[in-house]
Amino acid sequence: MPIQPILWSSSGAVRIIDQRALPESELSRDLDTADAVADAIRTLQVRGAPLIGIAAAMGLVAATRDQQQLPRADFLSRLKQLATLLGNARPTAVNLRWALDRMLRVAESTPGVGATVWERLRAEANAIWDEDREMCRRIGECGLTVLEDGANVLTHCNTGALATGGIGTALAPIYLAHEQGRRVHAYVDETRPLLQGSRLTAWELMRAGVPCTLITEGMAAPLMQQKKVDVVLVGADRICANGDFANKIGTYGLAVLAQHHSVPFYCAAPWSTVDVTLASGDLIPIEQRASAEVTVIGGRPIAPNGMTALNPAFDVTPARYVKGFITDRGIVQPPFRS
Amino acid sequence: MPIQPILWSSSGAVRIIDQRALPESELSRDLDTADAVADAIRTLQVRGAPLIGIAAAMGLVAATRDQQQLPRADFLSRLKQLATLLGNARPTAVNLRWALDRMLRVAESTPGVGATVWERLRAEANAIWDEDREMCRRIGECGLTVLEDGANVLTHCNTGALATGGIGTALAPIYLAHEQGRRVHAYVDETRPLLQGSRLTAWELMRAGVPCTLITEGMAAPLMQQKKVDVVLVGADRICANGDFANKIGTYGLAVLAQHHSVPFYCAAPWSTVDVTLASGDLIPIEQRASAEVTVIGGRPIAPNGMTALNPAFDVTPARYVKGFITDRGIVQPPFRS
Repeated sequence: MPIQPILWSSSGAVRIIDQRALPESELSRDLDTADAVADAIRTLQVRGAPLIGIAAAMGLVAATRDQQQLPRADFLSRLKQLATLLGNARPTAVNLRWALDRMLRVAESTPGVGATVWERLRAEANAIWDEDREMCRRIGECGLTVLEDGANVLTHCNTGALATGGIGTALAPIYLAHEQGRRVHAYVDETRPLLQGSRLTAWELMRAGVPCTLITEGMAAPLMQQKKVDVVLVGADRICANGDFANKIGTYGLAVLAQHHSVPFYCAAPWSTVDVTLASGDLIPIEQRASAEVTVIGGRPIAPNGMTALNPAFDVTPARYVKGFITDRGIVQPPFRS
Repeated sequence: MPIQPILWSSSGAVRIIDQRALPESELSRDLDTADAVADAIRTLQVRGAPLIGIAAAMGLVAATRDQQQLPRADFLSRLKQLATLLGNARPTAVNLRWALDRMLRVAESTPGVGATVWERLRAEANAIWDEDREMCRRIGECGLTVLEDGANVLTHCNTGALATGGIGTALAPIYLAHEQGRRVHAYVDETRPLLQGSRLTAWELMRAGVPCTLITEGMAAPLMQQKKVDVVLVGADRICANGDFANKIGTYGLAVLAQHHSVPFYCAAPWSTVDVTLASGDLIPIEQRASAEVTVIGGRPIAPNGMTALNPAFDVTPARYVKGFITDRGIVQPPFRS
């Protein structure tokens, strides 16, 4: 059973696993306010495009628990403020805004006092979560068709249970194949600078008993050269109408290497990751994070004092490198319309 | 003035900077025996193909200081034993065996007693070191022609003063360009797992005042996509007769990315790195190192307990990806003959 990275606490707070502490320790935190949820998203305690959508929706609910007595207009106005705060936590993943917009639409279309709207919001957050779990499973089922028995899959970053409300996006086909007794083995790209591969993906695949081997990013090319990689599966933080997509830094390089070595390269994501309002990848805002995430690991400096590092959190892979988009609507090809 | 990574101590031991401790501390160690030198090479206290050749030659001298009274035959026999021990420290770089073979040939062709042969060996080790310094400068001069004013150079691993007896191989053109007042900027690939880029290259370029920016390996492809890289310069640990070459893991991927983005890709190395006895890259022995070098950074685990990581120290780049080999004999093209 995959790990559950998010829950309601008994008091109605958002209970998360602090993913910064994995794999060394499994730390739970209860988030009571929108500020706390936004901070958890910003600092990557909660990460993964689908999961930050769920966390934001749940955060809106937790943060308005004690505002239910407000008159309707005041409740809605407070809700919008909090949604803006949460929506600004990270710029690239579209799921965050998608979930918040959906919550706001539901609130506005629900008649009644604050308490009634709040109950409806709580149901909607649960629905977003339930649907995500279901989407993960459908992505897994669609993706099974690209995994031959004995397949060696190269994955990047973390796209599993820790990134979603279910069994993941790009990891979902791997989990299902393993569940069904097919032989499948994952090469887990460690994914610098924040090591989501070695810290998170390795951890959840090992827990689930899925055979896997850790590699540094520089090992991907020689593995492909030696024909040891059958397929590359990655996730997405935002997919444009033309199929260009943003994903964790390092994805575009893998796409080029895969094409060069004739290895099929797939992007797996729920349909909510598609942003039809953006025509192409050059329009995606790319989050630039602090230099220190590159120059310090676990509190220890690994570069000289004063060294500057680039740290874009994402890169953009043009659609032409992608063999197919594995979604809850099937394996699809651009252009995408809503 | 670049750092001096190796010296004779006043007592005739091999004094090295322990490169594992950089950039946090600048630790010197005196190595008195062949065992100590072999261990320093094996554990990467001393690394870089040219520098380990110099260290091995100097190690032979330091280790036989107290054997000079031996009869000639016994001295030569002891020397051969020690050369075998040193030669087995690491398998991939050809410079190690090249330097040791050269020392043995000199010893055999020098008439006289142990003490006479030893004096000749000491002169030969110094000659190897001096020649390497001179080769670095010639590589730098040849390489200058591939650096336009304002060039952005992407480098991998450490190929500078810390890897050689002089100003480096792939870093030599950068140092010379900077010395001559040309504008040059280096993107320093951090180079997982052992971070020779962030720990060593960043440190020596900063010391020398060369403008540089640290990147993770996953950032190389988007930088090329954005046309921010003008040229890629890497070193080599062994170059085959057909031009295939082994270098630090991650090099082959950069070569593919460079070709894909029409960025010129050069390999810089002294001629002693060419091994004409190997026809092609598939014959190069590739050192496999411990999994823990990937799963632990600075004593802290970054992957779950029990996770297995691949850790080949090198990969092989086929000659067809290389625009030219920048050597002390000029910018040359394969096939290579001795």
